[in-house]
Amino acid sequence: MSSSTSSSPQESVRRQNLGALLRYIHVRGATSRAELTTRLGLNRSTIGALTADLATAGLIDEGVPQETGRAGRPSIVVRPRSSRVYGYALSLELDRLRAARVGLGGRILDDRSAARPAGTDPAPTFAALAALVADMQRTAPGSPDGADGAACVGSALAVSASVRHHLGWADETIESALAPALTPHTGAAAGPFVGGLADLAALAEHTRGAAAGADNVIYLHGDAGISAGIIAGGRRITGYGGHGGEVGHMVVNPGGRLCGCGSRGCWETEIGERALLHLAGRAVPTAGAAVAATLLAARDGDEHARAAVVHAADWLGFGVANLVNIFNPTVVVFGGTLRELYVSGADEVRHRLYTMALPACRAHVALHTPQLGADAALVGAAELAFEPLLADPLYAVKP
Amino acid sequence: MSSSTSSSPQESVRRQNLGALLRYIHVRGATSRAELTTRLGLNRSTIGALTADLATAGLIDEGVPQETGRAGRPSIVVRPRSSRVYGYALSLELDRLRAARVGLGGRILDDRSAARPAGTDPAPTFAALAALVADMQRTAPGSPDGADGAACVGSALAVSASVRHHLGWADETIESALAPALTPHTGAAAGPFVGGLADLAALAEHTRGAAAGADNVIYLHGDAGISAGIIAGGRRITGYGGHGGEVGHMVVNPGGRLCGCGSRGCWETEIGERALLHLAGRAVPTAGAAVAATLLAARDGDEHARAAVVHAADWLGFGVANLVNIFNPTVVVFGGTLRELYVSGADEVRHRLYTMALPACRAHVALHTPQLGADAALVGAAELAFEPLLADPLYAVKP
Repeated sequence: MSSSTSSSPQESVRRQNLGALLRYIHVRGATSRAELTTRLGLNRSTIGALTADLATAGLIDEGVPQETGRAGRPSIVVRPRSSRVYGYALSLELDRLRAARVGLGGRILDDRSAARPAGTDPAPTFAALAALVADMQRTAPGSPDGADGAACVGSALAVSASVRHHLGWADETIESALAPALTPHTGAAAGPFVGGLADLAALAEHTRGAAAGADNVIYLHGDAGISAGIIAGGRRITGYGGHGGEVGHMVVNPGGRLCGCGSRGCWETEIGERALLHLAGRAVPTAGAAVAATLLAARDGDEHARAAVVHAADWLGFGVANLVNIFNPTVVVFGGTLRELYVSGADEVRHRLYTMALPACRAHVALHTPQLGADAALVGAAELAFEPLLADPLYAVKP
Repeated sequence: MSSSTSSSPQESVRRQNLGALLRYIHVRGATSRAELTTRLGLNRSTIGALTADLATAGLIDEGVPQETGRAGRPSIVVRPRSSRVYGYALSLELDRLRAARVGLGGRILDDRSAARPAGTDPAPTFAALAALVADMQRTAPGSPDGADGAACVGSALAVSASVRHHLGWADETIESALAPALTPHTGAAAGPFVGGLADLAALAEHTRGAAAGADNVIYLHGDAGISAGIIAGGRRITGYGGHGGEVGHMVVNPGGRLCGCGSRGCWETEIGERALLHLAGRAVPTAGAAVAATLLAARDGDEHARAAVVHAADWLGFGVANLVNIFNPTVVVFGGTLRELYVSGADEVRHRLYTMALPACRAHVALHTPQLGADAALVGAAELAFEPLLADPLYAVKP
């Protein structure tokens, strides 16, 4: 409503159309003007005017396609300027930090990672994250103010729920440490925004990965704990304070083991890294490498390891069945350490799902591994970073 | 997007504004033009033009307020024409049928109920529902075609999940039986739409009840089974096929009793009507009356009944804690038979919630009984029935 007081109806429709067009090619990649005309329901001259505006602003390139194989004049193709319009995406995990420079269109142009500095003081962690960004910014095209037509348009951080649980960092702690560390390198860009790691991985797989085209998606992420990113009706479901998706603390086995949260039989006590390693009779470091070794041993015939995998995969399917009854999704994606657990125990997972979930709720569910692999959360963070630009391309952010 | 090709930008903004204004007074009731100006961010002359259009269409009345107690000319008050613009809202439960004529603004103008005809043949049930509507239509103002300015603008049905489970009626069965039964009485009105009973009760409490103003809400409904209506980010979450919210079949106690769905230890085996009556050592009819008697006996000191209530309320809090970890809501509403269970066992529910749910997820949760009481699902169905009118007041439906 309020935009109608600040600009004319025509202008507000034009801004909406600019956003819809830029978002379309950001998600779909290079697209002909002819297809844009059809998909956006606008006529050719309107599309031409919109692409001219976006090209002038340095957000897209237009050109003749290489070869069409069809008679007649080929339709001009519109591409996001991925190499010059970019965002910084970061991820904060319990044991490592990652940062990527991601171009409009979702392409990772550059990336860095580092071990997370030990201890619970947030300052060294955010300094290390900022250093990764600074290092990439040195070789990035353009200056932070975009004077030469290339620029950082936004930044965002994906935070693993384990960081909150194990380091005790509140949202306010993270938010207040992040901005001062990052802004010297990102200038006037939008953000930094913050989201959950599973939540942003879900967003990425929904936008351009294993769940593209699906509006009801559950992305399960395993690391030191288990959390979920949930897309329902095409939108991220994060709850009032952004703390939803704590499925690792859904109690599935009240007679089970004590969980770090104080409850007994939380889902992650049955399917988490520690559970798997404990059951397999292996040492319990918090490293994912030990989990991979266990799964490998199970495939190689180690009986203890195999029993541990069967147990954990069975409980994995158990919890998935509960979530399927609650959300009636069409795609469930298994990420982080749950990726390997799912691959190793797909039969157990499917068996539990098919016997436990209601037929109507599971009728259209497909089980997938992440198409974006371990980059899903970074790509999802980039989606947050690009959001203000996509919502209002010429006015929200000065590229 | 597509509306911009079928009408001018000005016209499409006008239609949006008409919808926003009508929706505002539908939800909030009588509102002064001055308040509408502020709330909708539009200037006085625009508000005046919009209310004139809506009054001409017979959707609202305008008038001077009775008494303001303030100096100066009072601002004209705009009211929904509740008595002449209405929808039909129906509910289909395992043992009874309800129907109401609901005025714009959400007021129940008339209502009827009947026992559900026995058996699994849908025809008698839908004939009985249609008869309730026909009976109300006889005394409703206006003719179905709205020739005299009063009209039915839509209809919708709330279906208890228990009907699907116990009668085995698929969505297609319900949808294909409903329209032919109803349309002779509702004419060209929008719908009939279909929604879940808990889902629509959640919508009603979110729109104008115990969860008004809350964007993250869980409404738990108990009858023969347990289901949930979920509002997340201000929107209904129903999943791909509308089958989400089957929280009664979230397994919480794998060592528990067999459930009708084939699983063991589903939430409803611990907190449902049958569980409560079984534990209290009482006969097991499917009537809510026996549940009420048990809860009364527990309050009057019957030891068996009290133990059953404590057990069921403890498990109620257990499942609520799981859902709070998943959804991070601010309001949980206990409806149907769960209303009385919650009232009788609030201490147990709260204790479980506070010890089991993560602090960040439960920090802002309030527990409520339905403000709309047993009418919540009907009022929610009316919201569905009104939706096309509210989305595009002058064009969607011919009043």
